[in-house]
Amino acid sequence: MSLTGTGPGTEFSLIRTNGTWSRRAGPGTNKPVTSGPGTSPPGTSGPSTSPPGTTGGPAGEHLSQAKLYQCSNGYGVTWTVESPVVFSYRVVECEKLLDMSNDTLLFGHVGDAEELRVLKESSKPLRRFVIIDETVNEIYGAQVEAYLKSWQVIYKLLPLPTTEQNKSLELVSRILKELQRFGIDRRLEPIVAIGGGVCLDVAGLAASLYRRRTPYVRVPTTLLSYIDASVGAKNGVNFCGCKNRLGSYTPPVAALLDRGFIKSLPRRHIANGLAEMLKMALMKHKGLFELLEKEGRGLLDSAFQSSDTISGCGCTDPASLATRVAIVTMLEELAPNLWEDDLDRLVDFGHVISPELEMVALPELLHGEAVCVDMALMVFVSRERGFLSGDELRRIISCMKSLELPVWDSQCSEDLLHSALSARLTHCGGALRLPLPTGLGTAGIFSDLDPPTLSRAYQNWCSELGSGRSGLSESEISN
Amino acid sequence: MSLTGTGPGTEFSLIRTNGTWSRRAGPGTNKPVTSGPGTSPPGTSGPSTSPPGTTGGPAGEHLSQAKLYQCSNGYGVTWTVESPVVFSYRVVECEKLLDMSNDTLLFGHVGDAEELRVLKESSKPLRRFVIIDETVNEIYGAQVEAYLKSWQVIYKLLPLPTTEQNKSLELVSRILKELQRFGIDRRLEPIVAIGGGVCLDVAGLAASLYRRRTPYVRVPTTLLSYIDASVGAKNGVNFCGCKNRLGSYTPPVAALLDRGFIKSLPRRHIANGLAEMLKMALMKHKGLFELLEKEGRGLLDSAFQSSDTISGCGCTDPASLATRVAIVTMLEELAPNLWEDDLDRLVDFGHVISPELEMVALPELLHGEAVCVDMALMVFVSRERGFLSGDELRRIISCMKSLELPVWDSQCSEDLLHSALSARLTHCGGALRLPLPTGLGTAGIFSDLDPPTLSRAYQNWCSELGSGRSGLSESEISN
Repeated sequence: MSLTGTGPGTEFSLIRTNGTWSRRAGPGTNKPVTSGPGTSPPGTSGPSTSPPGTTGGPAGEHLSQAKLYQCSNGYGVTWTVESPVVFSYRVVECEKLLDMSNDTLLFGHVGDAEELRVLKESSKPLRRFVIIDETVNEIYGAQVEAYLKSWQVIYKLLPLPTTEQNKSLELVSRILKELQRFGIDRRLEPIVAIGGGVCLDVAGLAASLYRRRTPYVRVPTTLLSYIDASVGAKNGVNFCGCKNRLGSYTPPVAALLDRGFIKSLPRRHIANGLAEMLKMALMKHKGLFELLEKEGRGLLDSAFQSSDTISGCGCTDPASLATRVAIVTMLEELAPNLWEDDLDRLVDFGHVISPELEMVALPELLHGEAVCVDMALMVFVSRERGFLSGDELRRIISCMKSLELPVWDSQCSEDLLHSALSARLTHCGGALRLPLPTGLGTAGIFSDLDPPTLSRAYQNWCSELGSGRSGLSESEISN
Repeated sequence: MSLTGTGPGTEFSLIRTNGTWSRRAGPGTNKPVTSGPGTSPPGTSGPSTSPPGTTGGPAGEHLSQAKLYQCSNGYGVTWTVESPVVFSYRVVECEKLLDMSNDTLLFGHVGDAEELRVLKESSKPLRRFVIIDETVNEIYGAQVEAYLKSWQVIYKLLPLPTTEQNKSLELVSRILKELQRFGIDRRLEPIVAIGGGVCLDVAGLAASLYRRRTPYVRVPTTLLSYIDASVGAKNGVNFCGCKNRLGSYTPPVAALLDRGFIKSLPRRHIANGLAEMLKMALMKHKGLFELLEKEGRGLLDSAFQSSDTISGCGCTDPASLATRVAIVTMLEELAPNLWEDDLDRLVDFGHVISPELEMVALPELLHGEAVCVDMALMVFVSRERGFLSGDELRRIISCMKSLELPVWDSQCSEDLLHSALSARLTHCGGALRLPLPTGLGTAGIFSDLDPPTLSRAYQNWCSELGSGRSGLSESEISN
């Protein structure tokens, strides 16, 4: 006997009348969700007359976007549930986030004007559970505390050693115990995480687990997390020696982006973030690539601080422009694929070989550096396929070098390359789905990579860039 | 300065052309998702030409259901992401699930005929990681292993003590370590969980964490999990002495429902499940209530086994009918509100006072028993409000008794009642949102409960049903 492959069956719409949901055969008048964003952000919605994810109908009826299908066979009934959950979050550029007069840290996650008014007028003191990276705490901790005190917030500041080695379920559990002790209203009091990618990932996982989802706010303090970890839904921890083996796709209610934090970052860590920015440039934005070519070194020198004090949104200084384009191009790719159901992902560029490389080269190599080594090799694959001219390849490699990023690594052996590609095959449903540049700022996804092409690309990469040393020497960087 | 409450701003649609997503001002021609269910179930989709959650457009363009909004102020740009993620899962009634000739356990999660054909024709041996409750393993373990062997499945069978006391993050971590050791293809090899609610909850959380989401199949072996835990998205573990404090909303790819397992269940545990069934009856299905009134005792006696061996889907025996109606009414309420964004939930009936009661009365009282005590009290509240007649109240209480469920408990003090309601207020955004019967099989949600009404209802409940003893005595049950 078999109950499989019988198809979805009869379609039922779900309609709510007087508080009770019932099904009705047929598609209904299934218009898309009419509510704008911010009307009911996850975890912060107050009482509403219309349930989330519904459209109003005749006589107080509400039609859900969800569907129920039913089919029968000799043995029983099979139902298929199809239910869209709408995730909504804000990415907010701001400056002077820790300035006493700036209320963005406390209210930046609220998009709805009415909800904001109610919150601000409430006499109830605000409560915030703040997770902060230990090193960030040394620099900004006193400022964070002074800020919270000035707003009379009841808070718990939890500094944690959020390093790659500590990125574990145990650290998540430690956060959760402190959170449980402090106690929060999961509808109104978002957890705040201040730090780099590891801190945001660990805090995000804790928040997503607590009461099955507690809103949280991301405050990235590194360039890498500013343009990468902050804007998506992913969080995670390492497990059994595997990077980000456990985690979830739960976006924050808001990412609050203040470039001011970047000025306290070591130069090498700024380059580290530039690698992810270059990734987006190479995949889909020639203008950003040209900006990095021209201004990359200057961005490193200035630590992404604007030359004028009033940056403003009409401003065209390279730091504002570069971060803004990086974020928009990233959001374009992430928003339609929040849970990564679609395996064709341009954002995977630089992340095909680098996970294996990181396993042998961490902590010597930073994440962005491993990504850049991966991208450099893939650029050679693109040239071998005829997608890039020799001149385009030289411009890309030279841009990487000007950003003080490694373009080759002795630990990236041909064996490692093959093992990474075979892991990719397994995780991508049997197809390579390799994002490759097809020009400066354009890309495609390819699964038809034959071994000889790959091998020639690898050999050329090694002979043109390899030096028997890991990374680039200081003198080479200054070239 | 303030960046808040500025509204969503300019709307952008997201369009994919040649593998690259870009934004375009305006709403686009945003038709609803056209694909039926099962065409790309989470975690099992193969290569496809159209990305999930999109509609085809002109010239190979794809329009995402996701939206991006942008607004600017003097300090920078704020983006709002609104992204629907479609969850799809099957609830499959079946029988003889462990029969060698039945392939539902291996393929029941696959709805798409073409995908099924490819899977069945593959020469690659199937691999399954199976989590099974220890007690269930004693009864059915040998059968499960014989089944898997007969299908030449490479498997790991992991029996676990899935009791309420062990429902912890540590148990999840133990599962994850074993899972990592065994290794699975997260696209093709769903985890299988066989057991009661605790087993399904713990396994579900492990699956949802592994690689940020690994498909899993639920096989409930108790009546309670058959009609309740199986059909929704929730999973969870206890933490710091709080019930289900950690967890997620990740539906399985399939729940495979075989009533055959119920026959090995102790009578008291069948009554335990009947409480959740009665909940759905009281909230929204008079027919189910009348069936339970009339046939409840018989269902207990027969352990939900159909009198004829061919149950079939046209069959009207009470066991098929009762379970089917319970599941449909539950799916109607859960599907439109998978992530519980809407706080107005009829399924919360019986779950307002019971969590507090369980904290003092577990393990003496089973979950369904605590739910029934809660429902009985609420029925008195409904009568006090004038929603139910005295006769209706008597019929409900008498039905509860005939299902061998407690209708009063000495540990449910007036203090406990008030503490439970104030916890409810906190968790429901400041409103009570109390589901109450407004007749037999109809209900509403009420936030306007005044203390004198509540107090009178409580006093009447105690004087009419209280006996200074916890629960009902055997002789009372037989009345």
